[in-house]
Amino acid sequence: MTSMNLASSSLDALLASIAQRIGAQHVLTGSADMAPYLNEERGLYHGQAPAVLRPGSTEEVAFIVEACARAGVPIVPQGGNTGLVGGQMPFGQVLMSLQRLDRIRNVDPVDMTMTVEAGVILDTIHHAAEAVDCLFPLHIASQGSCRIGGNLSTNAGGTAVLRYGNARELVLGLEVVLADGRVWNGLKRLRKNNAGYDLKPLFLGTEGTLGIITAAVLKLFPKPAQRSTAFLAVPDPASALALLKRLRGEAGDALTTFELMASFGVETVLKHMPGTVRPLRDTYDWYVLAELSAPTRAFDLGTLMETTLGAAMEAGEVLDGVIATSEAQAANMWRLREDMSEAQKHEGGSIKHDVSVPVSRVPEFMEQALAACLAAMPGLRPCPFGHVGDGNIHFNLSQPVGMEKAAFLAEWETFNRIVHDIVVAMDGSIAAEHGIGILKREELAHYADAVGLDLMHRLKAALDPAGLLNPGKVIGS
Amino acid sequence: MTSMNLASSSLDALLASIAQRIGAQHVLTGSADMAPYLNEERGLYHGQAPAVLRPGSTEEVAFIVEACARAGVPIVPQGGNTGLVGGQMPFGQVLMSLQRLDRIRNVDPVDMTMTVEAGVILDTIHHAAEAVDCLFPLHIASQGSCRIGGNLSTNAGGTAVLRYGNARELVLGLEVVLADGRVWNGLKRLRKNNAGYDLKPLFLGTEGTLGIITAAVLKLFPKPAQRSTAFLAVPDPASALALLKRLRGEAGDALTTFELMASFGVETVLKHMPGTVRPLRDTYDWYVLAELSAPTRAFDLGTLMETTLGAAMEAGEVLDGVIATSEAQAANMWRLREDMSEAQKHEGGSIKHDVSVPVSRVPEFMEQALAACLAAMPGLRPCPFGHVGDGNIHFNLSQPVGMEKAAFLAEWETFNRIVHDIVVAMDGSIAAEHGIGILKREELAHYADAVGLDLMHRLKAALDPAGLLNPGKVIGS
Repeated sequence: MTSMNLASSSLDALLASIAQRIGAQHVLTGSADMAPYLNEERGLYHGQAPAVLRPGSTEEVAFIVEACARAGVPIVPQGGNTGLVGGQMPFGQVLMSLQRLDRIRNVDPVDMTMTVEAGVILDTIHHAAEAVDCLFPLHIASQGSCRIGGNLSTNAGGTAVLRYGNARELVLGLEVVLADGRVWNGLKRLRKNNAGYDLKPLFLGTEGTLGIITAAVLKLFPKPAQRSTAFLAVPDPASALALLKRLRGEAGDALTTFELMASFGVETVLKHMPGTVRPLRDTYDWYVLAELSAPTRAFDLGTLMETTLGAAMEAGEVLDGVIATSEAQAANMWRLREDMSEAQKHEGGSIKHDVSVPVSRVPEFMEQALAACLAAMPGLRPCPFGHVGDGNIHFNLSQPVGMEKAAFLAEWETFNRIVHDIVVAMDGSIAAEHGIGILKREELAHYADAVGLDLMHRLKAALDPAGLLNPGKVIGS
Repeated sequence: MTSMNLASSSLDALLASIAQRIGAQHVLTGSADMAPYLNEERGLYHGQAPAVLRPGSTEEVAFIVEACARAGVPIVPQGGNTGLVGGQMPFGQVLMSLQRLDRIRNVDPVDMTMTVEAGVILDTIHHAAEAVDCLFPLHIASQGSCRIGGNLSTNAGGTAVLRYGNARELVLGLEVVLADGRVWNGLKRLRKNNAGYDLKPLFLGTEGTLGIITAAVLKLFPKPAQRSTAFLAVPDPASALALLKRLRGEAGDALTTFELMASFGVETVLKHMPGTVRPLRDTYDWYVLAELSAPTRAFDLGTLMETTLGAAMEAGEVLDGVIATSEAQAANMWRLREDMSEAQKHEGGSIKHDVSVPVSRVPEFMEQALAACLAAMPGLRPCPFGHVGDGNIHFNLSQPVGMEKAAFLAEWETFNRIVHDIVVAMDGSIAAEHGIGILKREELAHYADAVGLDLMHRLKAALDPAGLLNPGKVIGS
């Protein structure tokens, strides 16, 4: 890992020149000032940095990157500091926060586009879209504090990927500061552009290792005019897949959410999260949260949901279920899914896996992975949930009751090997939507195809030959 | 441009070793045998090659690429030879046809995926998807003879991009032979995968200059259960955009086609293409072909179309229109759009531009570009049409009546400068969906942002340092 090896006098001179450009109040070096940027939410990582830089514009980002490049000083870019794999954490490098680049530059409801700077909070984008009767469909649990630059550089997923795709698919244009400080202006608002190689993918999902995203043109969609939300009990993951196929066949693109949850997770939310209400009388092993939404009122989604679920119950795919008849009921259903990670914290340590397999193999994966993990540690409380329509399972494992948390978390590598071996054997991915960061760097090196890994290294060498952008992350050394 | 500079004896030895591996009958060197691969449909380019190689498997492609790399012999890959910008034409290099890689390896209606080899004809894929009640939504005029490898390496567009995206967005996985003959197996069937850099974009839309696609995993969609097709007269392009917004608001994702056509094009089809029928009694300046389609029967698309168009007529967005009441009527409407390029051939020379601008600027582009071109050549007969929902206009110009075809075509560069200057001033693209190939290489060099172009050259150097893959195309020297 490239770390700081600069004489402190040179570093002081570098920081002084940056302070002169962006303002001394935006160069933080005191530990209390830097703490919000260096503390990772779950306490998995403790960042260290000689300084936190807070540029306020693309030009200032470019100035900093060029100055650091000249001095050979590596930089870790950071958005809202909500990443789950440590990609945003410095370990001796200078940290650059993009939070002050927080302007919405343009909203165009005819082109259905919004041009935003990297530091805009995701929820701010949601509201700006709604204000012009549009939808920006990226929805993730941290949307109140995560920043779009981070969402794009990690290719965030979430609960609407089934219909709208990952963050990568929601971008028309990018503005990026390259490793040498040059700015690539790719802020096109075009739906079609085959003028040479598409350069956006170099920066989407590459976690700031090939360039620093400073702004983006986002795709907007028509705002839904109606929704129908249902909470369902299903016999098993295979039934959930059959139900998915049925709903998609009947509702087409109106099926915008389809989430599978195991009993433990739902019960944990009901136990720990105030205000949540049990939606079904009985308890079951598996649940599905399904939502239909559409911009049209030409037909009634509630009726469509009811008819389709009726047929699904007759076919045995659904054991019991309820369709929300109010916003409050729908919100409660969503909380049973979205509060799950938060609720799990009350049950001690949690070892998390963010994996994907081909959709058809989800049931097989669940069966194998659950059996293998329970065999490895009796008393373990598995909490698998996730975006089953994308084949993406958050295969979380809560510690056995009474076990020492640290002792449990020390087994992370053991469970990685168990779960990831099964995933890879099914031609799945060990990193579905949270990225690689530093948490999974060794896992990627362990499992990645050698040719693919060589291509990644070639890209890194071509775009950041000195290895100064987010060193040590993804494939970095 | 890297051409052949090998002693003919070395070349003979190379071809002999390849013939031994893939069979002598698949190494064509006679001019009659090679003609179908070297003749470009419109006669714009006349290819030359010492040999046409026809490997039958990924392994044979890899063998050829490695052998050629060792010998320093450049290769031009080719699919169905239907490209419109000369990307598939060799000018002294060895031609490698992918046509014999024509197996569908897997169709999975649960995962909604199909794994195909590069040489499968697009229409064959359509039929294979339909056979399992699915849809593969890439539709372009050449679908009866183009091959999926070419579609992907040019990031083909077509009439369903509005809803389903370009070819790039329809791919989950790729298998690629790299410039040194290694095979990258990225044939994942995953909807989500953030395990390191996404490598697919390196090969999608890069016209075989960074690697040769040998197979792909395609996304399938639910098959439409109903359609409603309408042919409409609109006052002008601005009204077409208002209608687009209205239809999208009412029908959401059920709006799958929205094509704008100028009068001249429609009249030309009616005049030259046997069996086509005038759908409206009167003639108008501008027409729209709109289609709704959906996998569900929960609501009636015909009713939705009728209601929406009624409101659009009241608002003055539509002057006249007809909704197809039979498959035959719908097919006739489609022919008025799809036969346009073919019909134009009967009107002499045509200078073509495949451009895009932000959707909101289409009316302004039309006005400016039409005025500028007519001023440059009185008597010119403009034939603009295209995918207005994507901002993509095929800005074709038919020659004045009575002018010498060659004299007209000699003005191609003049009109390029006129049209492309306007496009670039509107932050548009000089190559929307047909690619760069050799036709637009100089235009790309002329207009491209210097930083972006430098990034493209870095990618080329990183992946094909010897410049042996499709040299001279896109950015190649």
